[in-house]
Amino acid sequence: MSVHFEKIAILGIGLIGSSICLGVKAQNLAGKIVGHAKSIGTRNTALELGLVSEVFENPADAVKDADLVILCTPIGVYKVLAEAIGPHLKAGSILTDVGSVKGTVVRDCAPFVPAGVHFIPGHPIAGTEQSGPRAGFASLFHDRWCILTPLPGVNAAAVEQLTRFWQDLGSQVDVMTPDHHDLVLAITSHLPHLIAYNTVATAADLETVTNSEVIKYSASGFRDFTRIAASDPTMWRDVFLNNKDAVLEMLGRFTEELAVLQRAVRWGDGETLFNLFTRAREVRRSIIAAGQDTAAPDFGRSKT
Amino acid sequence: MSVHFEKIAILGIGLIGSSICLGVKAQNLAGKIVGHAKSIGTRNTALELGLVSEVFENPADAVKDADLVILCTPIGVYKVLAEAIGPHLKAGSILTDVGSVKGTVVRDCAPFVPAGVHFIPGHPIAGTEQSGPRAGFASLFHDRWCILTPLPGVNAAAVEQLTRFWQDLGSQVDVMTPDHHDLVLAITSHLPHLIAYNTVATAADLETVTNSEVIKYSASGFRDFTRIAASDPTMWRDVFLNNKDAVLEMLGRFTEELAVLQRAVRWGDGETLFNLFTRAREVRRSIIAAGQDTAAPDFGRSKT
Repeated sequence: MSVHFEKIAILGIGLIGSSICLGVKAQNLAGKIVGHAKSIGTRNTALELGLVSEVFENPADAVKDADLVILCTPIGVYKVLAEAIGPHLKAGSILTDVGSVKGTVVRDCAPFVPAGVHFIPGHPIAGTEQSGPRAGFASLFHDRWCILTPLPGVNAAAVEQLTRFWQDLGSQVDVMTPDHHDLVLAITSHLPHLIAYNTVATAADLETVTNSEVIKYSASGFRDFTRIAASDPTMWRDVFLNNKDAVLEMLGRFTEELAVLQRAVRWGDGETLFNLFTRAREVRRSIIAAGQDTAAPDFGRSKT
Repeated sequence: MSVHFEKIAILGIGLIGSSICLGVKAQNLAGKIVGHAKSIGTRNTALELGLVSEVFENPADAVKDADLVILCTPIGVYKVLAEAIGPHLKAGSILTDVGSVKGTVVRDCAPFVPAGVHFIPGHPIAGTEQSGPRAGFASLFHDRWCILTPLPGVNAAAVEQLTRFWQDLGSQVDVMTPDHHDLVLAITSHLPHLIAYNTVATAADLETVTNSEVIKYSASGFRDFTRIAASDPTMWRDVFLNNKDAVLEMLGRFTEELAVLQRAVRWGDGETLFNLFTRAREVRRSIIAAGQDTAAPDFGRSKT
């Protein structure tokens, strides 16, 4: 049987927030969904699309009587948001979030969570490069993982209820500490995004190759990086500001490995190159076997 | 009217070679296609799939009487191949290739091309991460670019004929010098592949995050890099061995830019991060506007 909340409040209605609204409606997981968004444009769009039944400029108004409150804004505003809603959270309700970093989320939010409210940080490992309330779709969380990072001593029944919520949205749920989450995501998500952004920046600033050449011939590899690098700049700025240590650690290792490859290129060491390339191919096969990517060539990409 | 060759010889029947065979058949561009492949398995598959009407172990047998000869093997074997076929090339025929590097191709092949044979190096900017004779499809070259790098003094009518050949396969054709090609591809293709391989290698060698965690949570960005890193190791080894200077130049710039980003992360410089991320998003939009990638979220990737 599905989990059911009387009232869910979604604070921040972008790609993830709107996808949760659509998933909740599709699975009938709530009596009512209300929302908060800072911009009037987003609030109007949320009502127009029927994502929420009511939408508020003031987040405190949105959380009143809500049984489940989900922070879906960029993580840079969590602290202000938590301070604003803290006194208005209903006793016995669950407060969670979808942010890509967990350590600083705990630091920023926990002080404002009243006793009797179950604070369980979370992170659905799902998304696209699109953003805004029109980008959401109900199946975004299907066959993906959602990581919860409950603090010691949190109510086990509340964790179970939130787990079922994400399962009902189509995901599998894992539990780990905030610190371990931040290390795992630094390598699987934050480093790849930083590298993609950096590759695009490098290509944009050459004197010897024009930007129009880079764009014309991008199907040879470069274009893949630009998809990731098209993700929301505010969200990603906040990720890097909030997961500094783990990102710097992964960057250090990346640079070390790159020096080895660079040396192999310089000295014509074909064996080192071939062996590393062969190992990389195996990782791809494991990801496909784990159901985390399509086996279709070129992502089954639609022809342009 | 389409171009037409009496006999085309395809040397090396992998993803690109088999796609040319299928495109030539679909467009009826040849009286006959014959092939050469080193491995008996590939030769049998090529016949079984009807890619070619005859297939030879000895490349010299394949090129006899051919009006168009296309080298489609990894570029590391071009020199041996050119030496083997040189004396058997038909006067007035066109010799071309599909390799991802052009400078060393000219160096390796030109000495073996007899007078009266039109040697015009080429490079279709198209592919997938799959390899082998079963990976090909006729529409691979549709809406892509093909770069030709004819040497000074080459027969203009032959260049025109080869241009029409690629146009008939669905591509647009550009002409540039081998050196400029190698710079352009170093940034649009070779650097992205090296970076993708390096990211995968970095993730595979952590003590703090397990390989199974990397694979489970790869949908957060990492998996995109693994597609590129699943490309044929032999082909890519040869690319890096043959475009050393341009790749090292682009790597140097990449590392320089990365130091700037790393510093911004370390010092919490959100403005630098935000501005760079915003610029990167614009490059993505240009690529979509140029018809070089799909606008669908997540590449229109099929759900796993």
